[in-house]
Amino acid sequence: MVIVMRQGATKREVGAVLAHIEELGYRAHISQGVERTIIGVIGDERPLDPTAWEILEGVENVVRILKPYKLASREFHPDNTVITLNGVSIGGDEIVVMAGPCSVESREQIMDIAQAVRAAGATMLRGGAFKPRTSPYAFQGMGEAGLKLLREAADATGMLVVTEVMAPAEVPLVAQYADVFQIGTRNMQNYSLLHAVGEAHRPVLLKRGMSSTIEELLMAAEYILSHGNYRVMLCERGIRTFETFTRNTLDINAVPALKSLTHLPVIVDPSHATGKRELVDATSRAAVAAGADGLIIEVHDHPERALSDGAQSLTPAQFAQLMRRVSRIAEAVDRRLTLPEPVTA
Amino acid sequence: MVIVMRQGATKREVGAVLAHIEELGYRAHISQGVERTIIGVIGDERPLDPTAWEILEGVENVVRILKPYKLASREFHPDNTVITLNGVSIGGDEIVVMAGPCSVESREQIMDIAQAVRAAGATMLRGGAFKPRTSPYAFQGMGEAGLKLLREAADATGMLVVTEVMAPAEVPLVAQYADVFQIGTRNMQNYSLLHAVGEAHRPVLLKRGMSSTIEELLMAAEYILSHGNYRVMLCERGIRTFETFTRNTLDINAVPALKSLTHLPVIVDPSHATGKRELVDATSRAAVAAGADGLIIEVHDHPERALSDGAQSLTPAQFAQLMRRVSRIAEAVDRRLTLPEPVTA
Amino acid sequence: MVIVMRQGATKREVGAVLAHIEELGYRAHISQGVERTIIGVIGDERPLDPTAWEILEGVENVVRILKPYKLASREFHPDNTVITLNGVSIGGDEIVVMAGPCSVESREQIMDIAQAVRAAGATMLRGGAFKPRTSPYAFQGMGEAGLKLLREAADATGMLVVTEVMAPAEVPLVAQYADVFQIGTRNMQNYSLLHAVGEAHRPVLLKRGMSSTIEELLMAAEYILSHGNYRVMLCERGIRTFETFTRNTLDINAVPALKSLTHLPVIVDPSHATGKRELVDATSRAAVAAGADGLIIEVHDHPERALSDGAQSLTPAQFAQLMRRVSRIAEAVDRRLTLPEPVTA
Amino acid sequence: MVIVMRQGATKREVGAVLAHIEELGYRAHISQGVERTIIGVIGDERPLDPTAWEILEGVENVVRILKPYKLASREFHPDNTVITLNGVSIGGDEIVVMAGPCSVESREQIMDIAQAVRAAGATMLRGGAFKPRTSPYAFQGMGEAGLKLLREAADATGMLVVTEVMAPAEVPLVAQYADVFQIGTRNMQNYSLLHAVGEAHRPVLLKRGMSSTIEELLMAAEYILSHGNYRVMLCERGIRTFETFTRNTLDINAVPALKSLTHLPVIVDPSHATGKRELVDATSRAAVAAGADGLIIEVHDHPERALSDGAQSLTPAQFAQLMRRVSRIAEAVDRRLTLPEPVTA
Repeated sequence: MVIVMRQGATKREVGAVLAHIEELGYRAHISQGVERTIIGVIGDERPLDPTAWEILEGVENVVRILKPYKLASREFHPDNTVITLNGVSIGGDEIVVMAGPCSVESREQIMDIAQAVRAAGATMLRGGAFKPRTSPYAFQGMGEAGLKLLREAADATGMLVVTEVMAPAEVPLVAQYADVFQIGTRNMQNYSLLHAVGEAHRPVLLKRGMSSTIEELLMAAEYILSHGNYRVMLCERGIRTFETFTRNTLDINAVPALKSLTHLPVIVDPSHATGKRELVDATSRAAVAAGADGLIIEVHDHPERALSDGAQSLTPAQFAQLMRRVSRIAEAVDRRLTLPEPVTA
Repeated sequence: MVIVMRQGATKREVGAVLAHIEELGYRAHISQGVERTIIGVIGDERPLDPTAWEILEGVENVVRILKPYKLASREFHPDNTVITLNGVSIGGDEIVVMAGPCSVESREQIMDIAQAVRAAGATMLRGGAFKPRTSPYAFQGMGEAGLKLLREAADATGMLVVTEVMAPAEVPLVAQYADVFQIGTRNMQNYSLLHAVGEAHRPVLLKRGMSSTIEELLMAAEYILSHGNYRVMLCERGIRTFETFTRNTLDINAVPALKSLTHLPVIVDPSHATGKRELVDATSRAAVAAGADGLIIEVHDHPERALSDGAQSLTPAQFAQLMRRVSRIAEAVDRRLTLPEPVTA
Repeated sequence: MVIVMRQGATKREVGAVLAHIEELGYRAHISQGVERTIIGVIGDERPLDPTAWEILEGVENVVRILKPYKLASREFHPDNTVITLNGVSIGGDEIVVMAGPCSVESREQIMDIAQAVRAAGATMLRGGAFKPRTSPYAFQGMGEAGLKLLREAADATGMLVVTEVMAPAEVPLVAQYADVFQIGTRNMQNYSLLHAVGEAHRPVLLKRGMSSTIEELLMAAEYILSHGNYRVMLCERGIRTFETFTRNTLDINAVPALKSLTHLPVIVDPSHATGKRELVDATSRAAVAAGADGLIIEVHDHPERALSDGAQSLTPAQFAQLMRRVSRIAEAVDRRLTLPEPVTA
Repeated sequence: MVIVMRQGATKREVGAVLAHIEELGYRAHISQGVERTIIGVIGDERPLDPTAWEILEGVENVVRILKPYKLASREFHPDNTVITLNGVSIGGDEIVVMAGPCSVESREQIMDIAQAVRAAGATMLRGGAFKPRTSPYAFQGMGEAGLKLLREAADATGMLVVTEVMAPAEVPLVAQYADVFQIGTRNMQNYSLLHAVGEAHRPVLLKRGMSSTIEELLMAAEYILSHGNYRVMLCERGIRTFETFTRNTLDINAVPALKSLTHLPVIVDPSHATGKRELVDATSRAAVAAGADGLIIEVHDHPERALSDGAQSLTPAQFAQLMRRVSRIAEAVDRRLTLPEPVTA
């Protein structure tokens, strides 16, 4: 931490800052500039609240030096974390694709979609049973019945299940059916929930908050890691900006930025990041070209009748075409799409 | 809902949209423009997902007409909602002031601050016992011990307690000590929590999500109202923008906007909205001048030693000065600050 | 400037940074932390591009210490700058109000509005003759004919003229008619134009870019000041955020922030900052309560027929009411509205 | 345009709206819903200001139906515009790459860089002679001397020159040396400048304003097109968001969105969109994978000594590697990089 004193700060003010530093068990290092005095605080600054120092007399501003996360950083763990689950590897050379409907709506729906996305090369089945909806009047999901259908469809097609958990108390229930917990964008800083999945024995797909910085995403991952669960995937799903033509703005910069800052796998959700299905194909290619380890994509057999997110859902045929195109991009960056064993019905 | 067809949409495409509308139980109304055909959908559009219609063949875009919230709207309830609690009225002519530290840190701290803010005119004591902190390594609050101290300090000074609840399972515990539940900015769309406080018998101070629109704030209130709890106060606490000089940007427009859209009381949090204590005084005055029904302000007796949010905390002396200045503004808009009965120790 | 070296940076890397610092004529000051080495660069960092240092081997990041503006800062000029012009003082105890239509449309229109706003207490007449319009098909302003009408209406009512100048080549023409040059939000970083008005002998009303930071606004002012024109007023006119209910978000924090950072007068434009006339009254009060030195407000005698910005224009009657309300706020912060000498027709 | 009346709007209010519509020469079409009356306005709405209608009595809100741009739209011109210039095609199957330093600094510098980028496959030389700098104290460019050096270096290597023009009066001078005018991000809504380049006989590279929507970018292009210059390329260069880790956020969604909305070529500037050279390679690949027609990239032979934008400049070796990688992506989307004829020195 570096403390910048105001121009004309008095000796007494500098002295008070130094005393405060020592009182807290740190060492100080003074540097006298032409216009300003700068004080370095030596020691692990992570437990400190840098802003609190700004109100000491004579202080102009305070600059944090260390990254606030540790376990999530590449410095701490230089190699890529590869999460292996029933033969599916996430974070290695293969590109993993998670696909399925926004919401589980019926046995027929989830079964049809599961078969279609599996046939096209997806290895993980996504689908919501507990839905965070902006409106209390909108469809809230099928609950446990939906979880059962998801599990059944995944088992029938040889896929893994990834689904959202919304409250700490639901963690045990969802764990009965899911292979991977999804933390939704609105819950990225729901610390009770991060704590709960941090103590559970399931990998976590952590979606970036729609207005969270890259650093805040890494801090949310740090919560989970610091509670003992090291199998965390980060998901860029679009951020909120002034642009209104698209639902969100896919922060493609975040993909290589995260790959350099952390060892955790990075997944991209082009469906939510655009909100328009005609943009999903191009942005899926972009995500893999930029270094993403996987994609999570909404697919519905009748998007116009979907109970949620219809506008951003691909049909199975569109999804199959996307997979072929993305596969070519994967090769062009020396990676490959995870291809499933053929399913024998 | 209005559906705009693309230029050159065929009769077949228009026919398919009409059929879909009728299939869902609505009536259609066609309007033929010079360049476009427009189809009005007649009926309560709230359960519909407008975006799902955008993928029908020939549709260019879909425009929602009705506001998605109902119980929270002024049309539904034209008069101001006034919440009365132990003699304190919120939403009427008086300006209510909630003040106290970011976190409860010790009996001495909370007692000293409670006496100071009460003496200056605050009627509600704020303070965190469960703290949502960005870092897992930062102080997470005293938990139930903190709640007890808050209650004790409030009772000793004749104040009400407002404190944050972070998870549905904590609602009964917090209800034992608090008069008002606070839903924090990171939990504004934590629907499990909104559901839980919607069923509890305590007023709720609902903070706007740091990147939530005014409409989303009203939809979050609608969740609580629709579960039976009508005593909701909305809190503008600053939104996230590109500006980095301040911690957030106080959306002062939201104050008169909310007062026109909803009947619920509107509180402003200038401490979080600025993140700098030297800006709290001026923005508190602005909030009341713009029509806010109350303020929630961080006060600490030793801000430079605060375990959280020190930079935005006022000293008791600064707070007392702010109260005198805000009181003059309140008079200039024909309102008044709630003045406490003198406390006899 | 402070250079933070990566954890594990080698002696050679540190040496190369030190050599580079000395090569550029600065002095270095090393501070060895527990995890990081930090190097202070001593000397005036303003001509340096801090980002360029980030690519030196072993450097993690670079932090600027000095404010990049000088002439605009309060440190350079501790007292408020008060601009006096034909008896109108801007930046002193009085609140100055500039009012008028978005565009000059006809002699009758500007004359009627000028008389109305003058009678209500405005001392400066605003109105556009050259209009920056998003669409090439929208009304682009009356040009010089509009300037003449503005001057005529202002002279007839004893007011000053403030109007926008859009290109360096138009500066001499506009100077013939205007008392104050307005630089619009889209031109805040049009450096050719800032240079041109910096050399002209007229005060400048510099509007904040709709997505410019407070620091960038001060840097734009610095351009004008550094070319010799010291009579600059800053105008907060709303910033672009994710909120769509209002046209812009009035950054009320910027008012006290600017008053502390700079000596220049601060004007607020609630018309553009909200885009809705029903919010102009409340936000005008807020602006003055927060410390603004003046307001600039759109008024039209027939807003529903205005050729631009009708939705945010007040009628003369609404404006007169606003002035009475703002006047009460001005008194509550120990200031006063500039009241005109009665006009004898 | 669709006008939504408030719930409970009176017959008189509806009548007044209808009368106003007819007075302006449009036809009205009424649709009576369950809660609201909706009025369609039939005719070309482009010259209308929709917001002005919102203040008519009884009107709740007004929704624009037509896109405000015409010449720039794909409906107007369904085929891609391909701009051909000295054998270089922009907007066709080839990916065009523009490369060079941020600023021209000396003959040796520009000559060395031109040869390097040409050898790696770039066909257009970029470089600033007039620089828009945030600080008046920063290097402002070499002016005409810089233009001469650019031309000389481009001619010596068989490249085209693209360079920024900042003011209408500079257009003739820059036209003497440049093949393509660049309009910078800060000038995207400098209408005097758009007008001037609209009348000039040179293609234009129009950079998106850092906080401009996709629609505003297309409207800025419409200005140029409507003044007779049809050779316009659009450039996505990153938008301003709350994220601070990167200088801007590359809006990758905008690439396929623009390709569907307009026939004009789309170029991506990964250097400014990230501000960090270690992110330029990955985002260049992403841009081409998403459908961009070209890239504009900053290259400097000594980035650490660059007078501007050093942090985002690649070395010639890094650029050559990027070109090889992007070329593989181009093939994977059935396009190819423009390869230069070998230069014989």
